[in-house]
Amino acid sequence: MGLVSPEMITMDILELIKTRRSVRKFKKKAVSIEIIDQILEAGRWAPSGLNNQPWKFMFLGQESKDSLAEHTKYSSIVKNADKLILVFFDKEDSYNRDKDLMAIGACIQNMLISIHSKGLGACWLGEILNQKIQIHKLLKTSKNLELVGVLALGYPLNSISKGRRKKLKDLTIR
Amino acid sequence: MGLVSPEMITMDILELIKTRRSVRKFKKKAVSIEIIDQILEAGRWAPSGLNNQPWKFMFLGQESKDSLAEHTKYSSIVKNADKLILVFFDKEDSYNRDKDLMAIGACIQNMLISIHSKGLGACWLGEILNQKIQIHKLLKTSKNLELVGVLALGYPLNSISKGRRKKLKDLTIR
Repeated sequence: MGLVSPEMITMDILELIKTRRSVRKFKKKAVSIEIIDQILEAGRWAPSGLNNQPWKFMFLGQESKDSLAEHTKYSSIVKNADKLILVFFDKEDSYNRDKDLMAIGACIQNMLISIHSKGLGACWLGEILNQKIQIHKLLKTSKNLELVGVLALGYPLNSISKGRRKKLKDLTIR
Repeated sequence: MGLVSPEMITMDILELIKTRRSVRKFKKKAVSIEIIDQILEAGRWAPSGLNNQPWKFMFLGQESKDSLAEHTKYSSIVKNADKLILVFFDKEDSYNRDKDLMAIGACIQNMLISIHSKGLGACWLGEILNQKIQIHKLLKTSKNLELVGVLALGYPLNSISKGRRKKLKDLTIR
């Protein structure tokens, strides 16, 4: 770990986790393919039940992402982002839908933390899944793949806003 | 961020993510309540759809965790661990089960990364959920709570083993 003490790493991890925000407006600056690969690499190392790794990734750049904009009421985020990372649940690798979805959530969080650690920002889009059947057709994805998450990402236009969370005492059953 | 350069943080995040493993054997050393609170704090800051934060936490120590051991074939892990963190889906806070489960997966991954960053280890138990109804009764949890994840944690007994993951090229749809 070189010059970084364990205490500093710990501090930075929690700091990174706590300062991550949904970013919806982006600079006109391209995210390189090398960076996309590092983000996907973070996702790849998530844990999953029986290590089944039930995820597949697709990334869409300027030339292709805007075709998805008409399938969400948040089209401005899709259009404004530099890239989209689409996360699919590969049903051929499934053993339990609930556990597989939690594993995919872990995979997405790895990517969101990675994105934030690089000074990039992302918005995890959920509403777009309402039109996943149309998107499957549009992208001609194979039948075993179900779209379960979309990350719109790029370099943030604005500085970080304040986050809100329930208090720990209200989340903990003693 | 003090002495830590952005490059080093980035390296450490990916390094942390890639070196995290399921830990199933633990030292006889107690994890302090302060550390448990820091782990839950990492979980608390996960993203969720509409920021609904559909999770609740319970932690069980030596005096109470062993009652869960009879509800899993991995009872040795439950008994050997110093603490259990139970993660519940609060159905009163739900808006979409699939998205809520992915958010809970993100929450659990925050905790797993936090645990690993502190030199602790954990095993995310899934099989124990087969007996969640019995566990709900045992713990007398309220009807809105559904057990969806259990983390067995403590100080690792052994050094880290090698992880296996599918290759990125096999996960990426170009």
